[in-house]
Amino acid sequence: MQAVILAAGLGHRLYPFTKFCPKGLLKVAGRELLFRHLYLLTKEGIEDFVLVVNTHNKKAFEDFLRKHPFPVRLVVNPFPELGNGYSLLVAKDLVTETFILTMSDHIYEPAFVKEAVRGQGLIYDPKARFVDPGEATKVLCQNGRVKNIGKHISNYSGFDTGFFVLTPEIFLVAEELARKKEPFSLSTVVQQAALPCTPIEGYFWMDIDTPEDLKKATRNLLSCSVKGRGDGLVSRLLNRRVSTWCSARLINILSPNQATLFTFLLGLLAALVTYWWPRWGIALYQLSSMLDGMDGEIARASLRTTAFGGWLDSVLDRVVDFAFLFFLSFHVPWSDPKVFVAICWAIFGSLMVSYTTERFRGAFGQDAYTLLHPLRFWPGKRDERVFLCFVLGWWGKFIWIFVLLAFITNLRVLFTLVLVWRTHGKV
Amino acid sequence: MQAVILAAGLGHRLYPFTKFCPKGLLKVAGRELLFRHLYLLTKEGIEDFVLVVNTHNKKAFEDFLRKHPFPVRLVVNPFPELGNGYSLLVAKDLVTETFILTMSDHIYEPAFVKEAVRGQGLIYDPKARFVDPGEATKVLCQNGRVKNIGKHISNYSGFDTGFFVLTPEIFLVAEELARKKEPFSLSTVVQQAALPCTPIEGYFWMDIDTPEDLKKATRNLLSCSVKGRGDGLVSRLLNRRVSTWCSARLINILSPNQATLFTFLLGLLAALVTYWWPRWGIALYQLSSMLDGMDGEIARASLRTTAFGGWLDSVLDRVVDFAFLFFLSFHVPWSDPKVFVAICWAIFGSLMVSYTTERFRGAFGQDAYTLLHPLRFWPGKRDERVFLCFVLGWWGKFIWIFVLLAFITNLRVLFTLVLVWRTHGKV
Repeated sequence: MQAVILAAGLGHRLYPFTKFCPKGLLKVAGRELLFRHLYLLTKEGIEDFVLVVNTHNKKAFEDFLRKHPFPVRLVVNPFPELGNGYSLLVAKDLVTETFILTMSDHIYEPAFVKEAVRGQGLIYDPKARFVDPGEATKVLCQNGRVKNIGKHISNYSGFDTGFFVLTPEIFLVAEELARKKEPFSLSTVVQQAALPCTPIEGYFWMDIDTPEDLKKATRNLLSCSVKGRGDGLVSRLLNRRVSTWCSARLINILSPNQATLFTFLLGLLAALVTYWWPRWGIALYQLSSMLDGMDGEIARASLRTTAFGGWLDSVLDRVVDFAFLFFLSFHVPWSDPKVFVAICWAIFGSLMVSYTTERFRGAFGQDAYTLLHPLRFWPGKRDERVFLCFVLGWWGKFIWIFVLLAFITNLRVLFTLVLVWRTHGKV
Repeated sequence: MQAVILAAGLGHRLYPFTKFCPKGLLKVAGRELLFRHLYLLTKEGIEDFVLVVNTHNKKAFEDFLRKHPFPVRLVVNPFPELGNGYSLLVAKDLVTETFILTMSDHIYEPAFVKEAVRGQGLIYDPKARFVDPGEATKVLCQNGRVKNIGKHISNYSGFDTGFFVLTPEIFLVAEELARKKEPFSLSTVVQQAALPCTPIEGYFWMDIDTPEDLKKATRNLLSCSVKGRGDGLVSRLLNRRVSTWCSARLINILSPNQATLFTFLLGLLAALVTYWWPRWGIALYQLSSMLDGMDGEIARASLRTTAFGGWLDSVLDRVVDFAFLFFLSFHVPWSDPKVFVAICWAIFGSLMVSYTTERFRGAFGQDAYTLLHPLRFWPGKRDERVFLCFVLGWWGKFIWIFVLLAFITNLRVLFTLVLVWRTHGKV
């Protein structure tokens, strides 16, 4: 399939942002809007892009494409003032088959694009949660076709997402409208063509019109980049709020792996501090746990997830967990056999909670939390363990940390063993 | 693609084995020869099988196919005494395209079948390591075609593997030979047709002619079922010899997961015995390590590998390793801070060696030992760790076990970290 991306708009409303940089090259969560379109559509199998630009912004796009060599052909719309309907028409000669049409100033989460490319005609969102209903373009669908479209219609089925799956016949409609030599918008083309329409809801998407939109888009992208399946209660209620807040501020500064290293060093520092001032060490450990989600959020929001990043994060988390328990053990009477036993089993169990689920992914090729649903609700995940250490440690109940960890983690491992056996095993 | 399997032979030489059971239903390493053909060819995409049987053994095959519902059509050869050339001809009306032809009394390792289905004509093995050159059928190839074939030719290019990739034209040749109303063998058909020939070497295959062949086949199958990539020095030199010897004797008795449970219980017993009689515990631990390969060998040789089996084996190995170190620690002065440190780090490192490589598979979807070649030669793998415990423990140097394990395992983890970073990472 081909894709046409319209980027010939003049972007007055985002001035001064767009003085030197066209709208499509503004960055949200560390990536240009255009990069997101090209990256996500390429993943859905699109191998031929047509980018419609204007004479002013052409050079900026050419520079971008030298840095990011996607298979894009540029076409200049010599009359951008004729509206985005005319911009579509400019792409006509380069399009030969069913194609995706989208706007360079829109942003979509990956799952939206995945579903939208399988739709037909105009993709609309019945319940857009992230757009301003007063500002957005609305669509009225009847019998599966566009009946009315506009910003000011009162009776509507949903909101125009700026994402279309079209056939080349659309150009005939645009040509007819162009004959009047007057500006015409894409909405007019869509209405004239009585396009089919496909509803898609529940995903984040929006168009970027004002400088505030840029910040709002970053925040929303980060929220939907929370992986969450392996999150415990503490993560959902506390850690994720802190980490997404920080991610929004650091996403243009830290790469995902730098974020991993940063929380690792903070965790290691926490473990060392624990040796001398256990309470402060435990507080730092909790802080590092609250920031632990940042690397994944930054990676997903800025489309930079890597297998290496996932691996490194997991391995370093285990090192921090061990280092913390190791240094904390000097604050309990470890020469007492009972305490010694608790320390050994707490270290073993803390590692094994992660080992059993990660090894599951290695064996079955799928995430343990997806296939083993009850695991999500059984206590003992890392965020909960660290929080338990924090609460007990702040009260000075160091021995209890080891005793409770030994029980909770090893019970969780046993539960995992039984669960995997019952769902996936036979002797 | 289709496949024709010839099973109409009378099997005199394997009498009394074949009195109640046709040759193709004899079991090698826990699986009927026919099951192996059907299973391995199905994995290569074959979806339509024609099985040529005789009037005597038809019922046995029908019973087998009720238990194992592969897409097989049975055809009876009413005149098996006319030779296996005539058996091929019987399949004629059911074959419409390029097809695989193979003999029910042959056995091939999976890698052979994978490569052979991509060959052409007669597949021959220039250097068959597992067949008796005096007994085997030899082939002379000239200019890529069969020139001569027979048991007693002196000038030959290799050995007939009994595996063919044919086109339906072969039936014309067989029909012509059948007109003489005399017995004719497949070899005659092959020579008459001047089939193309493809050499494939380095894999285990053989035909089953005598009762001794059954045992020999089991042994050889087990040898080529040793996975080996993650094996350390001790495994290659010692453990695998013991485990394959035992596997050959137990493969018809134990399922792979039963073997896993057996070595787990033995390991757990070893750990417990260590608490009271450390030397005997350590010896048992080494014994369980020597038998640890059995589950994988049995699973691969009997075509019963499962994701669950791999997962269970890994998790239970970690439990045994921890339990052993835990109980051994009561024989060292663990209230001495230095010894306490060594115990903690030995437990952590032993688990992390496995965690880092298993998490690698989870992240990258591929075996760590395949992608990270140097890891194979760096010390610290389980077989080596257990052997180190055994040697030091038998001499009573228990403290040294913890000290050396702490160093060796954590150095290996560090090495893995650096290696993965350099080969797969960027910040």
